Amino acid sequence: MTDQAGKAAATERAGSRLYGLQIETRSRVEFKDITDQIQKLIEKSGVSSGQCHVFVPHTSAAILINENYDPGLRKDIDDFLKKLAPAGDAYQHDDGNCDAHLKAILIGPSKTLLIDGGRLVLGQWQGVHFCEFDGPRRRDVKVKIVAD
Amino acid sequence: MTDQAGKAAATERAGSRLYGLQIETRSRVEFKDITDQIQKLIEKSGVSSGQCHVFVPHTSAAILINENYDPGLRKDIDDFLKKLAPAGDAYQHDDGNCDAHLKAILIGPSKTLLIDGGRLVLGQWQGVHFCEFDGPRRRDVKVKIVAD
Amino acid sequence: MTDQAGKAAATERAGSRLYGLQIETRSRVEFKDITDQIQKLIEKSGVSSGQCHVFVPHTSAAILINENYDPGLRKDIDDFLKKLAPAGDAYQHDDGNCDAHLKAILIGPSKTLLIDGGRLVLGQWQGVHFCEFDGPRRRDVKVKIVAD
Repeated sequence: MTDQAGKAAATERAGSRLYGLQIETRSRVEFKDITDQIQKLIEKSGVSSGQCHVFVPHTSAAILINENYDPGLRKDIDDFLKKLAPAGDAYQHDDGNCDAHLKAILIGPSKTLLIDGGRLVLGQWQGVHFCEFDGPRRRDVKVKIVAD
Repeated sequence: MTDQAGKAAATERAGSRLYGLQIETRSRVEFKDITDQIQKLIEKSGVSSGQCHVFVPHTSAAILINENYDPGLRKDIDDFLKKLAPAGDAYQHDDGNCDAHLKAILIGPSKTLLIDGGRLVLGQWQGVHFCEFDGPRRRDVKVKIVAD
Repeated sequence: MTDQAGKAAATERAGSRLYGLQIETRSRVEFKDITDQIQKLIEKSGVSSGQCHVFVPHTSAAILINENYDPGLRKDIDDFLKKLAPAGDAYQHDDGNCDAHLKAILIGPSKTLLIDGGRLVLGQWQGVHFCEFDGPRRRDVKVKIVAD
């Protein structure tokens, strides 16, 4: 192993890094497309091939990957989750946001994405969405970029 | 560090790779066991210890890990998801496949598996399933194998 | 690259390891906080920065990340899942635990967490829960700790 090869390996390893995104939501429920923000972090990291873990450190928010083209679909997702976990039901958890916890649990707090050629591997219609279920609030999203 | 140790490390790192599977579905909803196909990719990669991320670049398909033994259970999962997201409901998203998006969101587009001793770490009854919710179609599945 | 740098890199790589947790549940449905047990494995591994994949090799159990403070919320999650997948419904899968499979599918068999400064990256209210849906039983949880 030459000095140069050693240095290259170290640089790739150093490419693994934890970033934070700050998100400000404006209504109780909101689906915010954060695909471009994540893509910019990948470019900043210089990682061309690896994984990208997106994690929400909140219990009434979630990360969703699905179509980001038709705003009608966001309304459908909202209605669908409201039907499954109605805000008005009688819950033991009496903070008034139990429905938000249940929705967050169904969608999940994290998603793992892949990086290839310096870009997120996503289908033509796919986008990464931050889901607010108990806003408006200031929220954090953790983005871990892992180099191969 | 000897030359040999350096080479071994480089080989392991090189083991991290992105593969693609092509899947052809034959009905609108289908649960297809892809465990063996993923296991074969792991053998091809030569990775004995690491992670395996399975990702679907589609918005009306998903990856599910559960029992792959009883075909009755697949029927139950299908009925269950149909009850939660009926095809006939009035949706804003008017492509006629909104139920497929909602089902895909509930199951999720990706799963992370572990590799140990050159094999997927799975329980006795577990299998990895590609879920088609808007077929029949030709579909892609991305399989990222990451060496320790 | 000096010998020392090479050794440091090797040590970090060696930090990636697969651990097992044994869990004993005492009722049919149980949400057991395993955050501290996972944190202890991270300390044992010596990994200060990386990922932590938690995986359940069972088809009627799951891993959930949400609030671990209010026991009332656990009751709400239990009621919520019972409403979506009632135990008494007519199912094809006749082991008498089809509801448990469906709940496990909704919550999912794995979660990916991040490690920073030797600790799990979690929000103030977040905890990692093992979900038993067909207990009481002895269960395994796989914990893969991956060093950057």
